This record gives sequence, C-alpha cells and structure tokens, in this order.
Amino acid sequence: MTTDTASAIAHPNIALIKYWGNKDQKLRIPVNGSISFNLDSLFTKTKVTFDFSFQSDSLSINEQEISGPGLDRVVSFLDIVRGLAEKQLFARVESENNFPVGTGIASSASAFAALSLSASKAIGLSLTEKELSRLARRGSGSACRSIPEGFVEWFPGESDSNSYAQSIATPNHWNLVDIIAVVSIEHKKVGSTTGHELANSSPLQNARVRDTDHRLQIVRKAILEQDFLKMAEMVEMDSNIMHAVMMTSNPPLMYWESISITIMKTVKEWRAAGIPVCYTLDAGPNVHVITTKGYSDKIISMLPEIKGIKTIYKASVGGKTRLVED
Amino acid sequence: MTTDTASAIAHPNIALIKYWGNKDQKLRIPVNGSISFNLDSLFTKTKVTFDFSFQSDSLSINEQEISGPGLDRVVSFLDIVRGLAEKQLFARVESENNFPVGTGIASSASAFAALSLSASKAIGLSLTEKELSRLARRGSGSACRSIPEGFVEWFPGESDSNSYAQSIATPNHWNLVDIIAVVSIEHKKVGSTTGHELANSSPLQNARVRDTDHRLQIVRKAILEQDFLKMAEMVEMDSNIMHAVMMTSNPPLMYWESISITIMKTVKEWRAAGIPVCYTLDAGPNVHVITTKGYSDKIISMLPEIKGIKTIYKASVGGKTRLVED
Repeated sequence: MTTDTASAIAHPNIALIKYWGNKDQKLRIPVNGSISFNLDSLFTKTKVTFDFSFQSDSLSINEQEISGPGLDRVVSFLDIVRGLAEKQLFARVESENNFPVGTGIASSASAFAALSLSASKAIGLSLTEKELSRLARRGSGSACRSIPEGFVEWFPGESDSNSYAQSIATPNHWNLVDIIAVVSIEHKKVGSTTGHELANSSPLQNARVRDTDHRLQIVRKAILEQDFLKMAEMVEMDSNIMHAVMMTSNPPLMYWESISITIMKTVKEWRAAGIPVCYTLDAGPNVHVITTKGYSDKIISMLPEIKGIKTIYKASVGGKTRLVED
Repeated sequence: MTTDTASAIAHPNIALIKYWGNKDQKLRIPVNGSISFNLDSLFTKTKVTFDFSFQSDSLSINEQEISGPGLDRVVSFLDIVRGLAEKQLFARVESENNFPVGTGIASSASAFAALSLSASKAIGLSLTEKELSRLARRGSGSACRSIPEGFVEWFPGESDSNSYAQSIATPNHWNLVDIIAVVSIEHKKVGSTTGHELANSSPLQNARVRDTDHRLQIVRKAILEQDFLKMAEMVEMDSNIMHAVMMTSNPPLMYWESISITIMKTVKEWRAAGIPVCYTLDAGPNVHVITTKGYSDKIISMLPEIKGIKTIYKASVGGKTRLVED
C-alpha cells in the first residue's frame, strides 16, 4: 500500500481562563493552566494523505493552495508526526473551515486539532487522547484543548510529556452558548504566536500568572456547579487581565476596538438587569458573549442594536476531535 | 481684627506617570511616585475668610452652596489647617472653576491646592512650598502636585513629613500642550478616593507599583532632555498600566468609553505618521492628547473628525499655586 489517508473534524474552543505566554516557546508549554469549551457549530475538517509519490508537502485551505509561512508551519508539524511514526513520507493536507480565520475565533486551534488526528491516523499511528492533545499543542497551544470533548482544562505541565488538556465535563453537562459578535474580519496585525512571545515584556505578566490558580479554581468549580454568576465575574476578570498584559507589553497590543468596549459595557448592563451573560475576548476585537441556551435567542435579537457588529455566530458546547468519512 | 481673608489660584495638573493607590489612605501617602505638569488655562480660584462671627464652615462652588459630602471633605481639611494654626475659627470658602468638575480633569487637585494656600494664609500661617504641598496632599493626593510650578514630581515618602511634590522644570522649560478631548460630562460613577481604595484589590497593582521607578526615571529624563518620543511611549504605557489595574480591581473599574479607544488609536496613528503626540487618561473617559505647541493647532483641527468629542480644552504648562487679589 503506497497511499494512506484520513479525515478528521475539530471544533475551535473559547477560553474562559486564558492561555497567554509560554515557559517554552518552541514546545508551547504555557506559563499557566487554562479552561475552555469547544464550539459545536464551528469546525475545521482536514484530510491528510501520505503517498510515496509526493515530492514535498502541500496544503490547501478552503480550496486555496497555501505556500510561505502558512505551509512552513504545517510542514514543521508534519515533521513531528513523521518523527513519531519513523516514516519519511510527504503529505497532502486539505483543510476547510466554516468560519473566517485570523479574527479572534481560534482557527489555529481547530486546524491543528484536526490535523493532529488526521495526520497521525493517516501515517499509521493510534494515539491516545492525551497523546493527541500533546501533539496538537505542538502546532498551536490552544489546539490541545480542542482534542477532548465539552469543557476542557489544559494542565500546563513542565515538559512535552505532561502538558496536555483533559475534559472536565461533557458537552451536555451545562447548556452554555457562545454568541460571537464579529466586529472585524481583518486579519490580526499581531498573531497569537508572536503575541505569546511578547507576554513576558509586560511588567504585569508575572502577577497575572501567579493569580491564575485562583481564577482556575473558581471557574472550574462554577462549571461543575453550573453557577453562572460566579463564572461570569471571573471570566470577565480573566479576559481583562489578559488584555491588561497585552496592552502593557512592549510594543503594546491593543486588540480592543471601540465597539468591543461598547459590547462589553452592554453585556455588563444586561447581567445587572438579571440576564445570565458575560463577555470574553481572545487575541482580537471580537466579543464572545457567553449565556445559557434559554437566553441565547433574546441576546441574538438584542445584539444588533449595537451598531457595527458585522456577523453573529452561535455555538453550543461541542464534542471532541473525531475521525470522519472523507 | 476679627476677619482674615485670602484668595489663591491653582491649576489642575495632568499626570504623565500616574498616582493610583495609597500606603496610608487617610494621610494619602501614595504607593508610588508620580510626575505631572500644571495646566495653565484651567484654574480654580478660591477665597477663604475666617471670622469669629461664623457659627460653622460654609462652602460655595461656582456660586452654588454646597452641603453633604462635598462640604464635609472641606470641613475635615479646614480642621487640619485650624490644627496647624492652633485657632478655632470657622471659615467661609468661595471657589470657582473655569472647567467642569468630576470628568477626569483633576478638579480636586486645583481645588485643594488653591484651598491650601488661601486657607493657610487667611488663618495667619506662612507655609513653605513643601509645607503647602504636604497640606494640599491631605485634601486630595494629586493636589500636592499643583502647588509647585511647571513640571512636578511627587516623592511618595513614608509619612506625612516626607510625602510632597517639587518642581523638576519650569513652565517655560518645554512648550508641551495638553489638548483635552472631553467625551463625557457625566459625573464619575466611582470617584478617585474610592478608586484608590480599590487599587489593592487588583492582582496587578503590586507589579505596577514595583515597575514605577523605571517609568519615572525614563519620563523624568525625557522631560529634562525634551525627548518627546521617549516620553510618549512611556506616558502611554503608564496610562495603560493604571487602567489595567483599574479594570482588574474588584469590582472592576472600566473608565474607558468606546470613543476613548478610538482617540487612543488615532493618536498612535498620528505619532506613527511623524507627529509628536501621545495620549494619557486619568480616572475617567476623557483623553488628554499631549503634543508640542507647534502641532497643537493642527491636532485641534483634526480631533473633531472623531465623532463624539463634546468639548476640547487646550492648556500649556502652568505656574504654581499663588495668592491673588480678591
């Protein structure tokens, strides 16, 4: 047999406690743990084929051939997979997203989660969930959280072997919904990989990291107990703390746009009025508005009153990264 | 003689390195040093009269009689002045501002600076500049910086006796201009005194404080050497660091409005295009746009392109708190 192929689907995830900064930049060992949930309606689907006849790796995303840094990153990742399998075969990678890339919806997370499973399977490996999570982490840190199902915690660890993510609750444990207010479809000026490198240049990063266990503990407990208000305040705090580090790094990264502030303030007003809702922002201006299923339609109807929102995505808590038929 | 009266004028000041949080809340001994310059076109003028016939202290601001917390704060301050003079006389305080209060332009700074000089003089004290600065600090921390002329540094000290401000350069040392983009005339929901109390509830405050000497040193040197670019980056960083602490305190204080972000980003674009300009925000949404005299007209003509700015004030570097004829 000279051709081996596999396809996998993975969801992006939204972090409730954020990942920002690495102890080991190359291995993507984070300075702190993080908690997220997968986003069921958004996905990356990736097909990988290894073939003796290929002369090099190649990559298409949404049917566009990719070269340059985008391809280089995938080639480096495939080198890790080839090393694990001890096989020197080139690959054809075909990936599709049903959401825009580079806008604060973590496309690299679902991309490298799907690639981890499809590439490892296609080359003949059968990795455990923990091994897949470790592998996905090498491509994009937060990708390790898209491997397990539902609500997920990434244990930072100290080395490649013990830095991985694990499910802390199933998708149906709690009917949270992430309503993503997309305010910009421009590609980020500073990508997350470069941003992580800048984290230590902020005089506030060490203090943020030292306080993380406290925030993890509260959010983990709030998820397990389905205590929305406790979760809400700490999720917003954690988002603010990450952006505080970003805006005080050198050079400063101000990911917020003016409309991001308007949405954040509006969400706080809604919560003050009794609606279970909170905000969180990744490395971009889009605002993730977290609520429960019963309130999601109401919020989707109210959000457009804020002028300047370009698109709204809605996602419930999603499953794990999984193999699919081509 | 049964009546003693004196009038004084003081300017507010804009901090380039901010004051946020106290070691001693009652004595207003700050956790870190700060640097500011006085704003010449804005002022508080205060007349104080002590008279044996008065049965209590009274206060008017802009010809409105003030009672409640506003009066209580002035009475507490007058108690300190009476203690220094060892005289038990009640006072009539008449104050005027030529700018709105409670909107991020530090009205309490000019108010307590003017009150320090007029009240101490009226009761028969002749205080040195250092003693006046210490006294003004008791009324409102940043008021101590409005006592000396021009560019001013507040040495935090450890006790009432060594926490005071001193001029580091005269008003004509450097022709900086503060263009204040007023975006809200609402009274602040959380005043600075309460805000200072909340500073320690942020997990980032200690890290902010520990890094302050580094920022003070760079801004002090940049002022003395008239190095705008060096000053600009550190002034924006310091503003971001203070707001980072504010937005991560418990409860979080988000003083920025959406338009504040728009102005901050626009100012950064102007500087990238070669204009000597930077932003800084106090405990409010208004943006202080700092530039040099040669560019101030250009910036005042460009600012209104940002929709939503309500008023623009312009101020050069101002003089010290001084006695005036009634």
